[in-house]
Amino acid sequence: MTNPVFFQEIFSRYLGESGWHGVDALAYKDEDGNPSFKHVTRMKLVAEGSPDGTELRYFEIGVGGHTTLEKHEHTHTVIPIKGEGAILVEDRVLELKTNDVVYVPTWAWHQVRAVGNEPFGFLCIVKVERDRPTLPTAQEIEELKLNPEIAQFIKPRAVNP
Amino acid sequence: MTNPVFFQEIFSRYLGESGWHGVDALAYKDEDGNPSFKHVTRMKLVAEGSPDGTELRYFEIGVGGHTTLEKHEHTHTVIPIKGEGAILVEDRVLELKTNDVVYVPTWAWHQVRAVGNEPFGFLCIVKVERDRPTLPTAQEIEELKLNPEIAQFIKPRAVNP
Repeated sequence: MTNPVFFQEIFSRYLGESGWHGVDALAYKDEDGNPSFKHVTRMKLVAEGSPDGTELRYFEIGVGGHTTLEKHEHTHTVIPIKGEGAILVEDRVLELKTNDVVYVPTWAWHQVRAVGNEPFGFLCIVKVERDRPTLPTAQEIEELKLNPEIAQFIKPRAVNP
Repeated sequence: MTNPVFFQEIFSRYLGESGWHGVDALAYKDEDGNPSFKHVTRMKLVAEGSPDGTELRYFEIGVGGHTTLEKHEHTHTVIPIKGEGAILVEDRVLELKTNDVVYVPTWAWHQVRAVGNEPFGFLCIVKVERDRPTLPTAQEIEELKLNPEIAQFIKPRAVNP
């Protein structure tokens, strides 16, 4: 009665520190030497077959790490599950803990950082078919930094020793 | 700079036992005296404006409670965040703990139960525009019960004293 392929596709057991049974950690992005992010891994937990279907990913940001500051047409729903972090969304900086829910609207600038001395892990819901991110120009970064809270958030910082 | 409405829409702070700040617990389903479910509440955390957008809900099942045994065209992605539960998906019964990920495919029979003496809470991702559930006929229930594991799962049971 059991179809093993079907079974694997419908269920991923969480194992704690090592993630989910049978789910590999992937590079966050493909680009070599991309300086826009730091210490980020990615796992794909669900990916539906249809273009407008759901994809559920898990991202883990190491101590001192961050995702790329970017915006795009597609939206994110973000749910932290491990450690503590912070997210820039549009003109807000929000502290994040487990089970908070953040919605990143279409074309909102956003970036996620690990906070403190532990990795920060979060689930992220997107649509399967989605546009490529747009990165800020030098001028857009200067405009964002007019807000002191955002300037503090996006500045390069030292990794904890 | 802050638009409170926008802010509320993008961020829901998790408060633990009482759920999320500003998010009300709703009835699981509208029908009065519906015997198909027991001790279930629902919260809506994210609901996008487009029909093929994402909706993120939280369901909490009290001790001895269960959702409706049903199937439909739309899919679910289920992520437990509180307590322990079990889910019937198609012909499998799976034990669930925090951060496990379950995908309920299109037209798969499914039902969720709380296990043990604490409420079971889980996030559930669906599309905004979705079809109404189909309930099993008496004959379909008999067919499901040919599998002893499923028969055990779906039988009515006493609430813990």
